[in-house]
Amino acid sequence: MINNIKRIGVMTSGGDAPGMNAAIRSVARTCAFHKIECVGVYRGFEGLMEGDFKSLSARSVNHIIHTGGTILKSARSNEFRTKEGRQKAHEHLLNNEIDALILIGGDGTFTGGLVFNEEFNFPVIGIPGTIDNDIYGTNFTIGYDTAINTVVEAIDKIRDTASSHKRLFFVEVMGRDVGHIALNAGVGAGAEEILIPEEDLGLDRLVESLKRSKASGKSSSIVVVAEGDKIGKNVFELKDYIDENMPEYDVRVSVLGHMQRGGSPSCFDRVLASRMGVKAVESLLEGKSNYMVGILNNKMELTALEMAVKGKTEINLELLRVSDIMTT
Amino acid sequence: MINNIKRIGVMTSGGDAPGMNAAIRSVARTCAFHKIECVGVYRGFEGLMEGDFKSLSARSVNHIIHTGGTILKSARSNEFRTKEGRQKAHEHLLNNEIDALILIGGDGTFTGGLVFNEEFNFPVIGIPGTIDNDIYGTNFTIGYDTAINTVVEAIDKIRDTASSHKRLFFVEVMGRDVGHIALNAGVGAGAEEILIPEEDLGLDRLVESLKRSKASGKSSSIVVVAEGDKIGKNVFELKDYIDENMPEYDVRVSVLGHMQRGGSPSCFDRVLASRMGVKAVESLLEGKSNYMVGILNNKMELTALEMAVKGKTEINLELLRVSDIMTT
Amino acid sequence: MINNIKRIGVMTSGGDAPGMNAAIRSVARTCAFHKIECVGVYRGFEGLMEGDFKSLSARSVNHIIHTGGTILKSARSNEFRTKEGRQKAHEHLLNNEIDALILIGGDGTFTGGLVFNEEFNFPVIGIPGTIDNDIYGTNFTIGYDTAINTVVEAIDKIRDTASSHKRLFFVEVMGRDVGHIALNAGVGAGAEEILIPEEDLGLDRLVESLKRSKASGKSSSIVVVAEGDKIGKNVFELKDYIDENMPEYDVRVSVLGHMQRGGSPSCFDRVLASRMGVKAVESLLEGKSNYMVGILNNKMELTALEMAVKGKTEINLELLRVSDIMTT
Amino acid sequence: MINNIKRIGVMTSGGDAPGMNAAIRSVARTCAFHKIECVGVYRGFEGLMEGDFKSLSARSVNHIIHTGGTILKSARSNEFRTKEGRQKAHEHLLNNEIDALILIGGDGTFTGGLVFNEEFNFPVIGIPGTIDNDIYGTNFTIGYDTAINTVVEAIDKIRDTASSHKRLFFVEVMGRDVGHIALNAGVGAGAEEILIPEEDLGLDRLVESLKRSKASGKSSSIVVVAEGDKIGKNVFELKDYIDENMPEYDVRVSVLGHMQRGGSPSCFDRVLASRMGVKAVESLLEGKSNYMVGILNNKMELTALEMAVKGKTEINLELLRVSDIMTT
Repeated sequence: MINNIKRIGVMTSGGDAPGMNAAIRSVARTCAFHKIECVGVYRGFEGLMEGDFKSLSARSVNHIIHTGGTILKSARSNEFRTKEGRQKAHEHLLNNEIDALILIGGDGTFTGGLVFNEEFNFPVIGIPGTIDNDIYGTNFTIGYDTAINTVVEAIDKIRDTASSHKRLFFVEVMGRDVGHIALNAGVGAGAEEILIPEEDLGLDRLVESLKRSKASGKSSSIVVVAEGDKIGKNVFELKDYIDENMPEYDVRVSVLGHMQRGGSPSCFDRVLASRMGVKAVESLLEGKSNYMVGILNNKMELTALEMAVKGKTEINLELLRVSDIMTT
Repeated sequence: MINNIKRIGVMTSGGDAPGMNAAIRSVARTCAFHKIECVGVYRGFEGLMEGDFKSLSARSVNHIIHTGGTILKSARSNEFRTKEGRQKAHEHLLNNEIDALILIGGDGTFTGGLVFNEEFNFPVIGIPGTIDNDIYGTNFTIGYDTAINTVVEAIDKIRDTASSHKRLFFVEVMGRDVGHIALNAGVGAGAEEILIPEEDLGLDRLVESLKRSKASGKSSSIVVVAEGDKIGKNVFELKDYIDENMPEYDVRVSVLGHMQRGGSPSCFDRVLASRMGVKAVESLLEGKSNYMVGILNNKMELTALEMAVKGKTEINLELLRVSDIMTT
Repeated sequence: MINNIKRIGVMTSGGDAPGMNAAIRSVARTCAFHKIECVGVYRGFEGLMEGDFKSLSARSVNHIIHTGGTILKSARSNEFRTKEGRQKAHEHLLNNEIDALILIGGDGTFTGGLVFNEEFNFPVIGIPGTIDNDIYGTNFTIGYDTAINTVVEAIDKIRDTASSHKRLFFVEVMGRDVGHIALNAGVGAGAEEILIPEEDLGLDRLVESLKRSKASGKSSSIVVVAEGDKIGKNVFELKDYIDENMPEYDVRVSVLGHMQRGGSPSCFDRVLASRMGVKAVESLLEGKSNYMVGILNNKMELTALEMAVKGKTEINLELLRVSDIMTT
Repeated sequence: MINNIKRIGVMTSGGDAPGMNAAIRSVARTCAFHKIECVGVYRGFEGLMEGDFKSLSARSVNHIIHTGGTILKSARSNEFRTKEGRQKAHEHLLNNEIDALILIGGDGTFTGGLVFNEEFNFPVIGIPGTIDNDIYGTNFTIGYDTAINTVVEAIDKIRDTASSHKRLFFVEVMGRDVGHIALNAGVGAGAEEILIPEEDLGLDRLVESLKRSKASGKSSSIVVVAEGDKIGKNVFELKDYIDENMPEYDVRVSVLGHMQRGGSPSCFDRVLASRMGVKAVESLLEGKSNYMVGILNNKMELTALEMAVKGKTEINLELLRVSDIMTT
């Protein structure tokens, strides 16, 4: 390793995601492996501006690989958007002799990191941690795999009761801007229809599809709806619409909500987080900055942080088609 | 066995509950054991009035002990409230040479059974299957134990994110008239406060409790709210109230909904259902009728069906006190 | 409260069980509620003899209600069987001004407590924490409900593969001296036969039963075997016996092992542990000693510690019969 | 679609894997979508030789996407290795007017398919279904993701008790020839060391590593061992070795066994199986044969069946290094 980084700070910011603790553990252990120090920054940018730091030894991160949430806590910060806020943060970093920062989070977190780097030329590496899987430069974000399993397990339960009573359920899942969770969990749960932000299915088609489903002898139906689905109706409005237009259906609504963010991370997310933590620390030690670590075709790759923020992920069109075929 | 019952019908009615299939399996196998026939009645009283019957052999109920929902489906019926409806049901039973009925369900189901028995002197035994645990004459109803585990697992996930962001969550659980789920799952989940239909805690006390909790250094809080909590505010109204009166809290809401009814039954519910099925069949064979099978002090006991319908279950006051102490 | 207890020690000893942490939390919080101090004793009697103590505030037990294992660790100790060992323990208790002890564990733990109390007249209350459910004076021990769910979930998985390949599985579960886990989890998992320490089924009957099962058209079978089953053969010997005597079966073996001791406690175990912790502390404050807290007919009751150690739990004969009927 | 395939047979063969049912469902629904018939072949090659066929409509595969095992059952067959056996199979296919076969399984299954195709020029497509993830031409096999989650959840439980008692556990996981499960689940479970078939770590290094771990203050350790680890000792022999050479350790052994094959498939496996089923049917309809469907860099790709059988998967060396760093 060629540069003189001696102490690395690590923080989590934005919405929490399962596997963030596995990433923190990996960063702390990789620092120990390379005999440099690791410092935990609490409460995201808030804690950064207040100097809320704590040293993280290899042992201090025992028994967290399997836990949800983030031991470093998270927060959203307006003050960090101001020059003064960032100045305070920079001073705390200097005072604590922290040479580089690893930011675990999503778009907003990385944007903060970019500005900070630009202003103070402070080395920064991002790790994508969000259940939404909406970050350019990585096939998977930490927490996404766990979240789709959580959704699928919840819908499996809902299907038991839907099927016992021959009901139609609209199930709202997370995804204000992207439909990855809805599309994958929808296919995984065997949903009748999947409404996502990327594509306007249209209410007519939904009605059509439900009619066909009824005719084919299906006794119950699940429609998975992303928060930001493009039809522009939430699950309660969809229920009203169907109540009115297809009175033969007994419609119910379920909003899965915040439980999608929690829970013990899946094996995939733990392994991904462990790999990303190593790559992040070692990239800093190689003198790199302003990159995000990602997994592309099962390899650890770096993407410019700017691209990670600006780029768009795309919905898997093949999977949309698979979903259609499955509801034959 | 002293009487001449040769063929027993079994049905599920009302809201479905995990373990109903284990009860159906037990009824079918116990019939086979005693060399009598078992007939499944589909879609509750609806199917009873339409003669929607199917023979259930010992092997036909293989591989259902662990499944949620009910293979016999369930439904609510208005027609069965009419004399004509019940007449039709009775004719189908006679035509199919069914000598007695086992009804798996709750209050409404048992009321239907009582009327039917009175009118036609038709032998009827009830098995309490409902997640609400609100049936007099049994310490536990089938499905209740599974439901409180489902709630606790969901809140464990919510707590991960609550704690990462220092938030207050109002979590709505099932229980329009009784607070068993809220109280037990609330204690099990380590909830800050538990709002139930049986007791008016009052908003002042809630605020008081949240203030104390904040002062004591707790970083997050979960308040479990039964659907029918006595304060009379739903979780969204509670959020509004706290938003206004305690702006220092970042409040979120989660409505667990129908997933509480589904899922693979817990070991307790499977064993309970298996025991109740045996007791129900053998009680009929002993010439008994108009009883509900229950578990009282870990023994199978019969309670007059009328009492089961009229009696009230009581909230465990000791547990309310335990809940208070736990939130010290 | 009438006596002068100011400081209570709490420890876990013997085999760990899910829910022990919920019990520790309850003891700590109940102490805080009554404004007395709570001290955690680490590593059971080992730590007691070494003065390995740490104060437990109400907040120090945050976020442990849902975790398996025991934060106080556990250990088995030979030295505590000596007079010298107990003397050392007593001195540490006096030096730390601890006035009473709450022991969470099983038979061995309570025996240690009894001897200690006799020698030094030191107030002691026991809480039954063991997955075996083999303690007299309580219908349920902490950890048992979780363990039977763990077993049932594992066997559900095994049945998937058993049924796909038409195999016979012998599944060994914990229970050297008692068959509670085997019997309840066996019924819950829909096992073909259940071999327990309390009753010698005989190999002939097992073969008989498997033949009948084969003839009846069952495609796969699970036989649950407690470690100490009375036939006196372990699962590998049983496999050999069947391989030789019933070559038509494709036999496999699975030993579930220590995973039965771990995992997040079920709602039942969390609530039970919370209730027992309150009762234990308040019993001490009422001047009681030498008792074990138990749940009898859903109420918290005290049993003389001596009885808890000497008494025997009995297998539920009704459940044995249910098991027989279910395998018709 | 350009060819004249009217009826497709589908079977599962070899060891069962979670997600096989999702693949069967996908094949049946894709056939229905393209208005061709789908026929289920029961018990793998055994059923193929006996003509044990059943038509699979789109509705007949309702409610199986979330179930473990295989509704078509599986079996291993020696007779299919003979010319006569395959002749019989071919006749049954002709008699039932089946035009092509989809084989869901692993190496052995595909080898059978290759020989069959060569002999009778019968169109064949393979879908990789095995928990081992050891098939060339696909990054993931169906069932693998579920299996590593099952292992990680089991080890999470074991760690609870390991950590409460400061013990060392050797945990045996599946993998006779490949270490994918051991390596990924080992990293996911935070194992101390991981012993795999691909690399001889050597006993000295294991002892070294355990000493370092003890010195660093770790209170418990998990060593994950693949069935076919290259050191050549099974978990019981490893325990004996450590008992003798490191008496300071309290060693236990756990063999996870067949539960790794069962359970409800993860979302990933359900989606993967759904995609592969579509691709398999449509490849046949495009006139292709002798290929295996795989997922490569998140796209559905075909690989010559011969390559799938002959090629070797490689262990991820980067992950081995991550594992080393994590145990710092």
